[in-house]
Amino acid sequence: MSRGPGNRARRITIRDVARAAGVSLTTVSDSLNGKGRVEASTREHVAAIATQLGYQANRNARSLRSGRTMTLALVLPRAATRPRDEEMLGIDYYMELASTASRAAFERDHAVLLLPPLSSTDDLRRFAVDGGIIVDPRANDPMVDLFERLNLPWVTVDRDVGRPDDHWWVSADNAGNTTMALDHLWEAGARRIALLTARAGWAWFRDSRRAYRAWARAHGQQPIIAEARLQALEPSAATAAAALLDGPDRPDAVFAPPDRFAAGILRAARERGLRVPEDLRIAAGVDSHLMLTADPPITALDLQPGVVGDAAVDLLIARIRGEDVERQRTVGAALRARTSTA
Amino acid sequence: MSRGPGNRARRITIRDVARAAGVSLTTVSDSLNGKGRVEASTREHVAAIATQLGYQANRNARSLRSGRTMTLALVLPRAATRPRDEEMLGIDYYMELASTASRAAFERDHAVLLLPPLSSTDDLRRFAVDGGIIVDPRANDPMVDLFERLNLPWVTVDRDVGRPDDHWWVSADNAGNTTMALDHLWEAGARRIALLTARAGWAWFRDSRRAYRAWARAHGQQPIIAEARLQALEPSAATAAAALLDGPDRPDAVFAPPDRFAAGILRAARERGLRVPEDLRIAAGVDSHLMLTADPPITALDLQPGVVGDAAVDLLIARIRGEDVERQRTVGAALRARTSTA
Repeated sequence: MSRGPGNRARRITIRDVARAAGVSLTTVSDSLNGKGRVEASTREHVAAIATQLGYQANRNARSLRSGRTMTLALVLPRAATRPRDEEMLGIDYYMELASTASRAAFERDHAVLLLPPLSSTDDLRRFAVDGGIIVDPRANDPMVDLFERLNLPWVTVDRDVGRPDDHWWVSADNAGNTTMALDHLWEAGARRIALLTARAGWAWFRDSRRAYRAWARAHGQQPIIAEARLQALEPSAATAAAALLDGPDRPDAVFAPPDRFAAGILRAARERGLRVPEDLRIAAGVDSHLMLTADPPITALDLQPGVVGDAAVDLLIARIRGEDVERQRTVGAALRARTSTA
Repeated sequence: MSRGPGNRARRITIRDVARAAGVSLTTVSDSLNGKGRVEASTREHVAAIATQLGYQANRNARSLRSGRTMTLALVLPRAATRPRDEEMLGIDYYMELASTASRAAFERDHAVLLLPPLSSTDDLRRFAVDGGIIVDPRANDPMVDLFERLNLPWVTVDRDVGRPDDHWWVSADNAGNTTMALDHLWEAGARRIALLTARAGWAWFRDSRRAYRAWARAHGQQPIIAEARLQALEPSAATAAAALLDGPDRPDAVFAPPDRFAAGILRAARERGLRVPEDLRIAAGVDSHLMLTADPPITALDLQPGVVGDAAVDLLIARIRGEDVERQRTVGAALRARTSTA
């Protein structure tokens, strides 16, 4: 049956447990928190009584003493939290990042709270959190401002390009990853490699475009840059790719940061009877289930969202504790070579 | 700069705000909680001071009084929280459900905590939550047991087939939805409709299989049931579909509950030069980005995860409050007809 304010007199406290177990408050506290010297048998006895009474560890009392709630806010980009939204990007990436963050926080005795879209400091104040992880901030992201205005510690996953680069962040090496993908296409034999990207105030897009230009210059190749929109990604990418493939000097490979752009390129190639990889090689800047199961499977960069989520939790807790640590952490990527570039 | 135990003396309290604002504690409390009669100007003044001092509404103090934490745990199936896991099913569905739940909870002054995989009541006790939403429980789901043993209110999304059907749940009409999809295929002209499913202790699989058998009986059709594994879903489904399509009496349509099974069927059809929908019609039991962007797009049931997430939060809060409400809520689905059944 349900226990709730409706059908119980009051919350079970540590005193009730101590009384029922016939031990001291300290013994109960040490037993339940796994601290101090307590006989295993006593610890089990206390735990059994606590469960029997329906006692809950009172993080609140603890946090009133420490001034901390041991709770971290996770802010995913609006697009990621509205999967039906045509703008949705890299849902596999965000889901793994979120689940790893909750596990990483748990290992550090913290909890992860999934923050809904908020519009004011009053909204944010209603969540008693020690700090927040803001994933893929836009330039001068308003969520970062909310945390700043409440004087709450925050870290971003990927940089906020509107802020000085020395803010607290965990990020992939966007430029290095782009170079890795382009080198891979080059080694696979491609000599006219195009970039299919989008205009967006995200570090990921900005850095990869710059890295592409630098790579093309270094390889004496004329840059071939096409752009798709961040709405209806596949159709938009397919249209942009069609223009490239029907043009006078067709590229023999395309690198697209968003996985769904790569899927759109694959469709445009198929519609033209172009064989992948023989006639056109394709690589994506983020791995996903969509790339793994495409026909043929598409080469992509595994940004290791699990490692990123763990690093973000670790960095945020360090900032909350006021520890003197490196404020920026870069997480390496692994290139998953598949048939699309074989 | 970061505020954290490391670089500030103590937590800012409501008293500090009252002192700095030159008003009473009650006025501060009423202003920040939007209660009582407070001049708009005073309210703004107090809010400004609170922000300036970096004051955080103290949900903890509140919850110590109420005996509630205003926090709800969300438990996603392990498979959903490990996107790289080959078992991953319906990630779009889980992501939208989770984000909607956090929004729905916020509107009801609650927060949603993303629970990591837990193995003991001690683990769960470390999270001070008022209750939990357990999504897609397996038969006799161990997470439900953890909540039961701590005497914490819980609701499941889809039923736990190992428990009496009258437990607290929000679910799709699995049987009705299956019938809806089969009727749609029938109306599209299909006369030999196969079911491609899996053996799993989930209500979704059990109910849809039963509904398919009943539907086939009612339409005087011999049941054609193929099974794929829940590891490497597309390849497994493609293999199972291949056996069906190469067999003596080929079906003219296939209904598959998991979207990734439908993707596998599409691949098997393409490999055989079968045209979809002309030679083979395909429909899936859950909608996803994969179905929407398949080539051709695949007809699927939109289970409305947003509505489900909202209903689950609403039902859990009712149970926590000990309200006398209907314990079971069924959320309708909408059939998204696409080219695969045109």
